[in-house]
Amino acid sequence: MDKICPVVPLPLDEVVLADLMEDAKDFAFSHGLVFKLRKVLPYDYSVTFIPFALLPSPWPKDQYDMVCQLQKDINLIYYRVSNNFDFLKKSLQQICEFDEWTRRLWQIYERTYESQKDVLSLCIMRSDYMVGHDGLAKQIEVNTISAGFGGVSPIMLAQHKYIMSKLHLHNFRRALPENAGTRVALGLAQAWEAYGNREAVICFVVEDVVYNTYDQRQKELALTEKYGIDTHLIVRKKNSDLLRVCVKDGKLFLDNIEIAVVYMRTWYDPSQINSEELWRIRELIEKSRAIKCPNIAWHLSGSKKIQQELARPGVLERFCDDVEQVRRVRSVFAGLYVLEEAKTLEMVLADPERFVLKPQREGGGHNIYGRDIVPFLKSLPAPRRHEFIAMDIIEPVSCKNYLVNRDKITFTEVANELGIFGYVLGDFRRIVHNEANCGWIFRAKDAKSTEGGIAAGYGHLDSPSLV
Amino acid sequence: MDKICPVVPLPLDEVVLADLMEDAKDFAFSHGLVFKLRKVLPYDYSVTFIPFALLPSPWPKDQYDMVCQLQKDINLIYYRVSNNFDFLKKSLQQICEFDEWTRRLWQIYERTYESQKDVLSLCIMRSDYMVGHDGLAKQIEVNTISAGFGGVSPIMLAQHKYIMSKLHLHNFRRALPENAGTRVALGLAQAWEAYGNREAVICFVVEDVVYNTYDQRQKELALTEKYGIDTHLIVRKKNSDLLRVCVKDGKLFLDNIEIAVVYMRTWYDPSQINSEELWRIRELIEKSRAIKCPNIAWHLSGSKKIQQELARPGVLERFCDDVEQVRRVRSVFAGLYVLEEAKTLEMVLADPERFVLKPQREGGGHNIYGRDIVPFLKSLPAPRRHEFIAMDIIEPVSCKNYLVNRDKITFTEVANELGIFGYVLGDFRRIVHNEANCGWIFRAKDAKSTEGGIAAGYGHLDSPSLV
Repeated sequence: MDKICPVVPLPLDEVVLADLMEDAKDFAFSHGLVFKLRKVLPYDYSVTFIPFALLPSPWPKDQYDMVCQLQKDINLIYYRVSNNFDFLKKSLQQICEFDEWTRRLWQIYERTYESQKDVLSLCIMRSDYMVGHDGLAKQIEVNTISAGFGGVSPIMLAQHKYIMSKLHLHNFRRALPENAGTRVALGLAQAWEAYGNREAVICFVVEDVVYNTYDQRQKELALTEKYGIDTHLIVRKKNSDLLRVCVKDGKLFLDNIEIAVVYMRTWYDPSQINSEELWRIRELIEKSRAIKCPNIAWHLSGSKKIQQELARPGVLERFCDDVEQVRRVRSVFAGLYVLEEAKTLEMVLADPERFVLKPQREGGGHNIYGRDIVPFLKSLPAPRRHEFIAMDIIEPVSCKNYLVNRDKITFTEVANELGIFGYVLGDFRRIVHNEANCGWIFRAKDAKSTEGGIAAGYGHLDSPSLV
Repeated sequence: MDKICPVVPLPLDEVVLADLMEDAKDFAFSHGLVFKLRKVLPYDYSVTFIPFALLPSPWPKDQYDMVCQLQKDINLIYYRVSNNFDFLKKSLQQICEFDEWTRRLWQIYERTYESQKDVLSLCIMRSDYMVGHDGLAKQIEVNTISAGFGGVSPIMLAQHKYIMSKLHLHNFRRALPENAGTRVALGLAQAWEAYGNREAVICFVVEDVVYNTYDQRQKELALTEKYGIDTHLIVRKKNSDLLRVCVKDGKLFLDNIEIAVVYMRTWYDPSQINSEELWRIRELIEKSRAIKCPNIAWHLSGSKKIQQELARPGVLERFCDDVEQVRRVRSVFAGLYVLEEAKTLEMVLADPERFVLKPQREGGGHNIYGRDIVPFLKSLPAPRRHEFIAMDIIEPVSCKNYLVNRDKITFTEVANELGIFGYVLGDFRRIVHNEANCGWIFRAKDAKSTEGGIAAGYGHLDSPSLV
């Protein structure tokens, strides 16, 4: 299976298409399916719609059900990884030697580890999958910091239901699974509740310039409208504002306001951290009793290196409850390889089209594919090979759809990636909440493109029509 | 009383203000409080927020209650006017001689009048008021075609509630009256139901380039989500699309689809009608059995001339049920004068600052104020004086507020105008629905400005905090 039939016969009649396009864009603008676009539009007073697939794309129902059910296992495993000092140390040791970013995070972790054992932390996670030609879902990566687009994806679903209704195809609406995407906000509310001071605030730490701000706003709104947190208890701060934090009796304060929960929507990329002072502040925050989302242990657990270590024979067993759980989780692992082993390096160089090289870091857009791998690896000094892992490339199934981006509509073969949201609230000893029913993000990209980032203009929001 | 206290002590602290501004703009973008801005932004893929007052502005509660209750009377009176051929003829006769626009509408009315007696029509109305220094609300005008901003005003209210919560001022939320602004869509749904063909559609006739499209979209959504009209039964067409309509057995068809309701969101300004063919089509539509919102009788009843005729001694009595109703309605009438009478012309020229000159037409932005009146009237040929009416200018009460427009925030004294929505569905013999509980639009403008149009950049959406 390399192609799936689209949900309606395509191409659409031109007049129908033109009307649907206008309907879809207007729906997006009426419902906040938007982001900032600084390069072209005035940042202060304009937005553009988030690029989207005009029609929902088909995805295998059995694989959707399977990865949804799997999220509880993924949550549990990453919780256990994040609390296993020795495993993290052994896995990341070599990377720390060469990669300053990981090393500095590690140093904070090492210095604050003991003090944080009894402090709750929250991780909002997203596990991403693609379906290969064999019809099976494979895990692409696990995001443990700043996992985005859960706030706006339910709006994308509503838009697709609306578009299906416009086409008078009500039956197709049934194939679209519900999306509890703002449910991760419940994790923030539960963390706030657990912190135990009803005057303390939830602090969203955002990038200096935020493009995807309306995704975060949907979570703020869910906190208020669904989960009972008063609006004035939700604050948004930039890194530069955090320079004013201080810790008294273990409690974290910003401008004399106590912070219960620090929700990091930045700090996932080194470019966001431009001063020694910020590193000092990050450590101060980490050392405090405030509930971090995520703390540094969770953050480090999201490294590609951890994903690769878990895929080694015998490793997953250490973090699972039983063989059945191991079997379930392993079934979604693609082949993952360290490049420092001569055998795997040879394998990758011999057949580069089978692989993708991924750096340790979150954030996307830095992968190396196929033919680019050989010259890249040859130019890379041997000690720096630790910075990358090799992964079997997934040849995704694809189907025809319309991709809508600004004033451009492209009728093309698209490939999809499904991300499942979940969260864990817990401390060193126990999990307080392991919540897997937190919705999804479904993305479409031109099947010919290797890149799929939405903000970068390659990815498009989509919804799965389960087949 | 010429000033009212703002709802919170002003000015706000600068840091608080900066945060509130960002919160308010993001709320607007997250909820579709937006419109198109073609001159600066790319029409196809961007929107800007609709200018707004950052805080709700105070308005007298007794006057708010009074004008809300009055809407049923206004609906009734304008229904009776629209069905009184002789009164319309007598009132508009002189205007028709000099004003081509009114004359052509009149001609269609005259030719189709008999055929339309048994055909239902819908009028979505908006009656606008300002409160003068005496603390009393006076009617500014009655709009009987394309009355806008009812769709987005409830979002403005939600935004103000959110801003009040951000300021931790929950008590102030109670002073903000609910807004059933999308309830006018119920009128469209009832008209569709009354038409009696479940396959026929509701056709929104929109301008060739629509700026305020998201206001209309809110009504479409209300039709589907609240009033049970299937999405595929709602279509949007431009005047140029209407050139394809035809009538068979009295039924109106566009591309073989039967139209139950024609909802005009254009045709209120002569500049929108650029061909003889469109006039022919307008007459064809008027002659059909489709339910027009509004039909031409309603359209003509919205002329300023009718407002002025109703204000003449003894006229209102002909359209009211009892003296109490006359008293209620007359209490909101400002002085309205015809300029063809030597006595009133003299009065206006002698003390121009007391008056505003208004042309017959809808759409706003064409009024002449104060000192500009004398040279204007002197240059106007005597026969053309019919085209204008003079109205007592209302010196509105004002209060301090922040007006937010694109990247500009102005801290200034603002004046407010309240519009009350209602609708009537009926034919020549009877009213089927007289619905007055259809919400409001509240606008703020710089108190020094004579113009208040939102699309023109002078007006700002606002909500009344009742005091």
